[in-house]
Amino acid sequence: MKFDLLVTNCVILPVPGTERLISPGYVAIKGSRIVQVGSMDHCPQGDTGTVVDGQGQLAMPGLVNGHCHAPMTLFRGLADDLDLATWLQHHIFPAEAAMVSPEMVYWCGKLAAAEMLLSGTTTVADGYFFEDEVARACAEVGLRCVAGQAVIDFPAPGAEDPACNIEVAERFLERWQGGDPLVTPAVFAHSPYTCGNRTLLRAKALARRYRVPLFIHSAETGPEQAQIAEPLGRTPIEHLSALDLLDRDTVCVHCVWADAPDIDRLRKSGAAVITCPQSNAKLASGRAPLPLMLEQGCRVGLGTDGAASNNSLDLFREMGFAARLHKVNPGRPAQLPARDVLAMATHHGAEALGLASGLGRLEPGAPADMVLVDLQQPHLQPHHSANLLVYSGCGADVRTVIVNGRVIVADRELQTMDLRETCAQVRRLARSAVRFPLDSSSSG
Amino acid sequence: MKFDLLVTNCVILPVPGTERLISPGYVAIKGSRIVQVGSMDHCPQGDTGTVVDGQGQLAMPGLVNGHCHAPMTLFRGLADDLDLATWLQHHIFPAEAAMVSPEMVYWCGKLAAAEMLLSGTTTVADGYFFEDEVARACAEVGLRCVAGQAVIDFPAPGAEDPACNIEVAERFLERWQGGDPLVTPAVFAHSPYTCGNRTLLRAKALARRYRVPLFIHSAETGPEQAQIAEPLGRTPIEHLSALDLLDRDTVCVHCVWADAPDIDRLRKSGAAVITCPQSNAKLASGRAPLPLMLEQGCRVGLGTDGAASNNSLDLFREMGFAARLHKVNPGRPAQLPARDVLAMATHHGAEALGLASGLGRLEPGAPADMVLVDLQQPHLQPHHSANLLVYSGCGADVRTVIVNGRVIVADRELQTMDLRETCAQVRRLARSAVRFPLDSSSSG
Repeated sequence: MKFDLLVTNCVILPVPGTERLISPGYVAIKGSRIVQVGSMDHCPQGDTGTVVDGQGQLAMPGLVNGHCHAPMTLFRGLADDLDLATWLQHHIFPAEAAMVSPEMVYWCGKLAAAEMLLSGTTTVADGYFFEDEVARACAEVGLRCVAGQAVIDFPAPGAEDPACNIEVAERFLERWQGGDPLVTPAVFAHSPYTCGNRTLLRAKALARRYRVPLFIHSAETGPEQAQIAEPLGRTPIEHLSALDLLDRDTVCVHCVWADAPDIDRLRKSGAAVITCPQSNAKLASGRAPLPLMLEQGCRVGLGTDGAASNNSLDLFREMGFAARLHKVNPGRPAQLPARDVLAMATHHGAEALGLASGLGRLEPGAPADMVLVDLQQPHLQPHHSANLLVYSGCGADVRTVIVNGRVIVADRELQTMDLRETCAQVRRLARSAVRFPLDSSSSG
Repeated sequence: MKFDLLVTNCVILPVPGTERLISPGYVAIKGSRIVQVGSMDHCPQGDTGTVVDGQGQLAMPGLVNGHCHAPMTLFRGLADDLDLATWLQHHIFPAEAAMVSPEMVYWCGKLAAAEMLLSGTTTVADGYFFEDEVARACAEVGLRCVAGQAVIDFPAPGAEDPACNIEVAERFLERWQGGDPLVTPAVFAHSPYTCGNRTLLRAKALARRYRVPLFIHSAETGPEQAQIAEPLGRTPIEHLSALDLLDRDTVCVHCVWADAPDIDRLRKSGAAVITCPQSNAKLASGRAPLPLMLEQGCRVGLGTDGAASNNSLDLFREMGFAARLHKVNPGRPAQLPARDVLAMATHHGAEALGLASGLGRLEPGAPADMVLVDLQQPHLQPHHSANLLVYSGCGADVRTVIVNGRVIVADRELQTMDLRETCAQVRRLARSAVRFPLDSSSSG
């Protein structure tokens, strides 16, 4: 067979962030790769494998969620509108201590995968404890992931003795390196305020040895700034730089408090940034200096963070929030235009994660990760510009999702998992430990 | 028959903004009113009219969109990421001059009504030219509306001679007062910078004579502040106050630039405020001092504004944006909690618009305007709190919409209009005047 999958009759946005559209067009897929993209005038006939008719839909690359803690779906809405210390110390940490297990990570990670796929995300960079179970859930369901095993200098689920945290991470890398085409293992050092220098250096050395990315929460909050600056006289990013942790394989998450010299450090080192504007807003951590980072040429991707702090894993929603948030200051309506946000959420994000060349674009040779958006929705009328994906679209507009050449979502139905079972498992886990007033099956 | 409509087996949030839930519960409707709300333990049996099984769903009052220009759906995405003057002068005003007609207002208003109903809005306060056609579209489709005929001191569609603008508005009030149970007519004086004192005074006198609300854009942008302050030495809200325009039947829209004395003027006069955070952010007008307004006891509702500046009419999205936006300043995570946003988008919003007592609550005697939200969606798991409606929900989660006792949306299908025809009409109107690159039927 010439192709395995042929998507026809759709409007195509091959490279988000550019103006180019093909309308109507087709995308031909062979195995896990895109092999042709073009106008319907030149659409191949005959022996074309499975055909997906994209009439009335827009084809674009699948979205890349640059930062998540997938299993934290269990804690979505458990505690909102609280100051960070209360939220963490009195709600999230106790809930994690009581409830994180391989079983919890698997089911709640699977729920997150379902939520992301159904809202158009085809790649996620995740970081958590028992990360094997997130990787397993993503591989089973068919979501591409960069899975980061958490390293932290406290007793943690799966690494009760923190002295073993690097070993735990190394076993994880061994298990997953080359193990599944959808899974890229990584190291997730929690932060410069929860990992000492020795741990940070060992984590980076491990990541270098296995040639995998190192993720680290950096400069997220004001208290973190103070906590690092007090003894060291440095900003968190300056601290990472001084330890020689910043290079093209390091991904600094948040960077809300990065100042101009920090942005220069990020740019010069080539370290990538993932910005999570909804989480940073909801937790009142602040707003990252995103326009300046982009202007300075930093590598930047977009992430949702976990569902306990966001509380949504819908990247369409995140795009709309980011684009509006950075304009709110009077007189800056051209700041962070929709095209930049679209690029961040697709190929720029993929590049920031160090993923295979071409990911996040619909081009011959690129991995076949794409989504079809229903342009017939009333809130997407009329069709003046692809900006409507950012300002008007939502995850529920996604009808078809293809990852690595395989149809994972068809007409909004997950093809690769039993969503009801997963939801039931997550509700069972939630009910076991916390108040749960909205669940009619547990009360009344 | 004892009831006409009985909604059963759902989780009920009778008064958004409070913690009270009934689970599982029922809502009984007779004619256009709610007559009973209670636990399933006491659910009436037998002669109960039509039954809607709400298993797995949450029943809440329909959302109240406090400000819209419904027909501007035609201009959604026509021009984004531009400074306000360029956007208005080079794109929106020319497009309006070329394209606004009764036909355009009807079809594009109908599209807006569809979008709002499908995302859980059951009441909208609208303001535009040829407002009869918005009122007609809403009445036909079954969306409750406060319809404001626009008054502006420029030649405008339907009032080419501005000297006649008050007469045009009066004819509108005559036609609609008492004309349709879903339509409350109103006067929409565009703004203090586009209406002279004489027009403002006549508009308010007219509204008083007919006992209808007066809507006015107020203190939206920095340039407006300057434009009023320069000759008058007053803020826009001070100007309205000096003209005796502020009372409980005046609704000031935006109030982004309201200062502390302005907030005091609003509170003392009883004038209501509608805040439109996504529109104000996208156009870089700024962020209204919402937490202070609420703290001071102003009457505040939430609006989307028109689809040319937002570009979404989904109030779930607006709620999520508002709740996060007002927390983004470091260290204020408890500011504008989800419960306050839920109240603003329901009963507080209805009260701000001066609508019938009980609207926005599920209580005996209240108008039967309610929505059912699908709690089985993966992004709404698990069910720790009603906050998930604000932080995780989206318009597409709404499955059933009831307005004035009538089922308007059933299982996400509009029962009262042909959505395909409306979309086709709007696309036809859009194609007639502007570039339209995403529409595959017009190119390729």
